[in-house]
Amino acid sequence: MSRTGNVVIVQGGGPTAVINASLYGIVRESTRRLDKSNRIWGACGGIVGVLQDRWQDLRKPSPRLWRSIAESPGAALGSCRKMLTAQEAMEAVRVLQRRDVRYCFVIGGNDSMDTALKMAQAASEFHYEMACCGVPKTIDNDLPCTDHCPGFGSAARYIAQATVDLGMDIRTLPTPISILEVMGRNAGWLTAATLLARRKPDDAPHLIYVPESPFVPADFLHDVQNVYDRQGWVVVAVSEGIIDEHGKSLGVTRDEKSTDAFGHALPGDVATTLAGMVTAELGLRARSEKPGILGRCSALMVSPVDRREAKEVGSFAVSWAIRGNSNFMASIQREHGKEYRVKYGAVSLDAVANLTRLLPLEFVAPRGNDIKEKYREYVKPLIGGSLHHYAWLATRSLPRSKPN
Amino acid sequence: MSRTGNVVIVQGGGPTAVINASLYGIVRESTRRLDKSNRIWGACGGIVGVLQDRWQDLRKPSPRLWRSIAESPGAALGSCRKMLTAQEAMEAVRVLQRRDVRYCFVIGGNDSMDTALKMAQAASEFHYEMACCGVPKTIDNDLPCTDHCPGFGSAARYIAQATVDLGMDIRTLPTPISILEVMGRNAGWLTAATLLARRKPDDAPHLIYVPESPFVPADFLHDVQNVYDRQGWVVVAVSEGIIDEHGKSLGVTRDEKSTDAFGHALPGDVATTLAGMVTAELGLRARSEKPGILGRCSALMVSPVDRREAKEVGSFAVSWAIRGNSNFMASIQREHGKEYRVKYGAVSLDAVANLTRLLPLEFVAPRGNDIKEKYREYVKPLIGGSLHHYAWLATRSLPRSKPN
Repeated sequence: MSRTGNVVIVQGGGPTAVINASLYGIVRESTRRLDKSNRIWGACGGIVGVLQDRWQDLRKPSPRLWRSIAESPGAALGSCRKMLTAQEAMEAVRVLQRRDVRYCFVIGGNDSMDTALKMAQAASEFHYEMACCGVPKTIDNDLPCTDHCPGFGSAARYIAQATVDLGMDIRTLPTPISILEVMGRNAGWLTAATLLARRKPDDAPHLIYVPESPFVPADFLHDVQNVYDRQGWVVVAVSEGIIDEHGKSLGVTRDEKSTDAFGHALPGDVATTLAGMVTAELGLRARSEKPGILGRCSALMVSPVDRREAKEVGSFAVSWAIRGNSNFMASIQREHGKEYRVKYGAVSLDAVANLTRLLPLEFVAPRGNDIKEKYREYVKPLIGGSLHHYAWLATRSLPRSKPN
Repeated sequence: MSRTGNVVIVQGGGPTAVINASLYGIVRESTRRLDKSNRIWGACGGIVGVLQDRWQDLRKPSPRLWRSIAESPGAALGSCRKMLTAQEAMEAVRVLQRRDVRYCFVIGGNDSMDTALKMAQAASEFHYEMACCGVPKTIDNDLPCTDHCPGFGSAARYIAQATVDLGMDIRTLPTPISILEVMGRNAGWLTAATLLARRKPDDAPHLIYVPESPFVPADFLHDVQNVYDRQGWVVVAVSEGIIDEHGKSLGVTRDEKSTDAFGHALPGDVATTLAGMVTAELGLRARSEKPGILGRCSALMVSPVDRREAKEVGSFAVSWAIRGNSNFMASIQREHGKEYRVKYGAVSLDAVANLTRLLPLEFVAPRGNDIKEKYREYVKPLIGGSLHHYAWLATRSLPRSKPN
């Protein structure tokens, strides 16, 4: 493929704190590598923007503005959740063909890779030469064939620090039980990252529940009571996506039939349910916290490693496409060795589109109520530096009044 | 009152991010002003620790550890929620009398001031000379007779920044409506502080609901639809304590009869209810975020002004007590003038115990769905510096797909 041809960039699905770092990486590398005559467009509002032929000229913003945008949360181009039909994929490619677009980059998760794949297939049917390239992005960390996904490290940093903070409050609190709900849909990667908050055995979180292991309410209540009896306070990290033994969500569902455009069930407020369960069944006052998407849009809690990789994986996708490759998702591969280092690679879109990489059960404690220490090695380098830990006055457990 | 006599410090109610700055202020000032022979004790686990005669020696930690503790969230001494009976207040005073305690400082909110008052009354009955002093603390900002309460500024900073961040995500998101639940019980001060996130009319939050104005579901739905029609995305800030026209909470209550030790109703998850309402009635997909107590324990989001004042108001309480005063709560008075400056004062415990200062209706928009600009002048200096705002690529509203 030549070094000429216009470029289009699409952002898909939910944003992350570093999705715009990837956008910046693609724009900067394209600007450097392609002739000035080639246009670089951003699709306004995701793939819908392509279908509607609505664009932003990404050569326009100054380098200074680009650097600021790279550090801003949210999808700067706008995003959507839309599953393309084969027909729409063909329409989209027709739009791009009319604009002589030869490079199409889709920044997104599993569903966005489906979009990229369908467009690659449509282009191939038309014998239209266009590189369709995926750039990974998801706080859920559930894309296959990559060590991890940009966006995850920052969300992991946020939720692990939140768990440290919460522990400081809850351990001294008259209401000594908190259930912290963590995003991640069907995958427990992000919830498992709360493990980083725990430096000593009695630190929060005391119990961690991920969707990969069925949630048994009776066991949960038993575990909460045990921790409470042992030390008088309990912080539980729970994934929004946990399901019971019958595969049913435990959330306060707003609408049983709620699904997104891709047919994924929308999880309810599961921490609310669990806190109610503890209060009703154990007579211990429990509360719930659900930072929700605050955990993916806090630029103040970004992992510097995550931000750097998000940018670099975008740059890599451009250079890989310019070398004549198409139909791939750029990936991050961790190198063996003592120090954390990565290199970038490419995997076939076929191998990632619509697939979910769950947290391997080797990381989950046998009773399904905790995460094993070896997960720490995996996730620690991704959050880009130590968490903020605090001083503590008491050297022993504090006495507390009986709950009312 | 002489400069001799032992000192006791009690922390009460829910912690804040700066409650230990007040503790530090009291300890440091006591250490400076009182003879070395006098003991400085902390009650372990709030007033319950006094009744149980359980203490920590607060002269022991090094100055360096004290400085770290001053910057740590949570109540370093441990806290409780217990309403003292007159009988228990007498028992507590007897315990203190046996230890020759002449200065008792209670750091807390409305309920803790009740504790301080009852102890002052019991001491007076016994003709036992002991200064009972309150040091204000509450993120709810609902103590009367003080311009504001330590802890509020930091919680306000947290929630206002969270609103900025959330806006960046939601404005580009396929699910374009978020309901952000804010703490504050019956008082809307903290929820109103989200106003600081809004610099331009279309910035988040678009709607703000506080408990001081009855919540009318039909009006709420109408307002959400209006904002959505105008700009395609909506961020709503709502107090956990909102009530409908009949005085009923709108939360997903875990237990209708749930109250704390002081008989205050425990609010449920009101944002969950409102998001469900929008989804069901308007057919617009809405989600909810509830950072909950994460908003009062993040030391990374502390207001430096709040931290300084928390320490200073503690120091002031000591110096005021040593000058022979008792039965008071230290207060913060804002000085008139262009620059933000405060001085410290003292108000009678009678005037604050168990009383709630609601957000004055002069700050609430007539329709009860927003906060007036003049509130900004009140709250802005308290968060201790500008919020972090981000760069934005689009100069116009982004097109978005119809919700599914």
